[in-house]
Amino acid sequence: MAAQDDNWDGTRVRALLKQRGQLVEEHLSSCVSQAGTPDRLKESMRYSLLAGGKRLRPVLCLTAAGLFGVAPEKVLPFACGIEMIHTYSLIHDDLPAMDNDDLRRGRPSNHRAFDEATAILAGDALQADAFYSMTLCDLPAGQVLAALRAFATAAGSTGMCGGQELDMQWTGQTVQLSDLEHLHALKTGAILRASVVCGALLAGAGEDALEALSAYGASLGVAFQIADDILDVVSDTETLGKPAGSDEEQHKNTYPSILGLERSRELAREYARRAQDALRPFEGDDAAFLKGLALYTVERVN
Amino acid sequence: MAAQDDNWDGTRVRALLKQRGQLVEEHLSSCVSQAGTPDRLKESMRYSLLAGGKRLRPVLCLTAAGLFGVAPEKVLPFACGIEMIHTYSLIHDDLPAMDNDDLRRGRPSNHRAFDEATAILAGDALQADAFYSMTLCDLPAGQVLAALRAFATAAGSTGMCGGQELDMQWTGQTVQLSDLEHLHALKTGAILRASVVCGALLAGAGEDALEALSAYGASLGVAFQIADDILDVVSDTETLGKPAGSDEEQHKNTYPSILGLERSRELAREYARRAQDALRPFEGDDAAFLKGLALYTVERVN
Repeated sequence: MAAQDDNWDGTRVRALLKQRGQLVEEHLSSCVSQAGTPDRLKESMRYSLLAGGKRLRPVLCLTAAGLFGVAPEKVLPFACGIEMIHTYSLIHDDLPAMDNDDLRRGRPSNHRAFDEATAILAGDALQADAFYSMTLCDLPAGQVLAALRAFATAAGSTGMCGGQELDMQWTGQTVQLSDLEHLHALKTGAILRASVVCGALLAGAGEDALEALSAYGASLGVAFQIADDILDVVSDTETLGKPAGSDEEQHKNTYPSILGLERSRELAREYARRAQDALRPFEGDDAAFLKGLALYTVERVN
Repeated sequence: MAAQDDNWDGTRVRALLKQRGQLVEEHLSSCVSQAGTPDRLKESMRYSLLAGGKRLRPVLCLTAAGLFGVAPEKVLPFACGIEMIHTYSLIHDDLPAMDNDDLRRGRPSNHRAFDEATAILAGDALQADAFYSMTLCDLPAGQVLAALRAFATAAGSTGMCGGQELDMQWTGQTVQLSDLEHLHALKTGAILRASVVCGALLAGAGEDALEALSAYGASLGVAFQIADDILDVVSDTETLGKPAGSDEEQHKNTYPSILGLERSRELAREYARRAQDALRPFEGDDAAFLKGLALYTVERVN
């Protein structure tokens, strides 16, 4: 039976990613259409939040909850909050005082399309509105609160913001592989891992399951980051929607700059396999989809 | 009996404000000492969060919870989260792209003491860490979640961030009193009101009590903002800890610029009285303290 097959091909993975991404997309627009928001701020928030993208993080959250029988609709307000926090981080990363990027998803970055003050405020508002949205899940309050706590940790000073600070400090310096791993475990890894773990927390999953999903999310995060670094080297600006080769130009530390392209590709595959292994205890379509997503992450660069 | 006296004098109000502020102060330091935070980011967060101040907003939250018999200690993680969000907003407001202020609480503003990227990240991290801290209250999860939802609303696009966007847009333009009222209801009013309301939500207060406290908080917020505008005119830089007269210099819309000093003073007193009236249903020390705080807010400028 097809539904019992544990090895989904890329076409099937991409089809479900698209379908669930569409579900997220439909709900996201309602997260940034509040009547009380001043027009220019709302426009700026919508510009970046509704600029497309695969919506990988919210889909991970929906799918992790699905492992425990919770319907995607129940988790949507939380999953959309995750995407709002991811989006705010992109807006702030692009600012002149940070990476000073003019292009994002093939369009002017937020502070270029609007102005710097509005871009800062759009990011700040997206973060607050994200936590608001997360509280709206129609699930037991203790589970929602546990998930919110885990996600706030991943977004804060010991997670994403801490990683971005290290990235700023170390740009232009030569660092060791272990430093780079630490930086990315915070900067991109924490949010990816939390997206998976929060789906399970929302569903009230037990300790063993949480540990397995945390391991999956951590390995997925590394595989994803290596693939992202490789794409910056081998892809072109049009495909990326942001300037290709910008990591090298900005003297960023990346996996290819430290390990070279071939060893980076091997490492990405290795982490994708580790992610799949961590899900061995789980069965069914949602588990197969999560395993497929790990491979999908690295097949883009192999 | 002194404890039953409903009209506290200024000395008594200031003494309890200091005592409860001290309680907040002691807990605040633990909110920004996490082992996993990169050193420079942590230093920047501590620099602004532990720079003193009366801690009015968290004290309002503790005291509102006290009206319903909840001990201050139970509410501290939430109250400190409020102060963290207030602090992040000051850091971001001072940025070159916003008010471009070099001085805050008598010291260089955060981006002057560190750098712009770190100041942006310290603000972002304080916001996320604030919501994390709020989840730690040892009270029924449904009540914590309701308070968190109310506070996120007040901090987001329909509250504080929306107000700051209007402030940026309207600086240098002449606006009507009703516009100024709307701006401040969002920019400073929403957080002050939510500080009071969240104390009550954490304590599981009923609809009528919530409505009365919301009315108190709204009036207090207006009284507070008018007093703040007046102080910018009549005080000096040393007392303020930030450049006096900067509102006029930056062509900001303020109550004195629209109404003149005398009419502004009258209006502040009127709103302080309205705040006190809203608390008529409540008795005891916490109620008397809240009423006293309303007067304290405006007596600074009368």
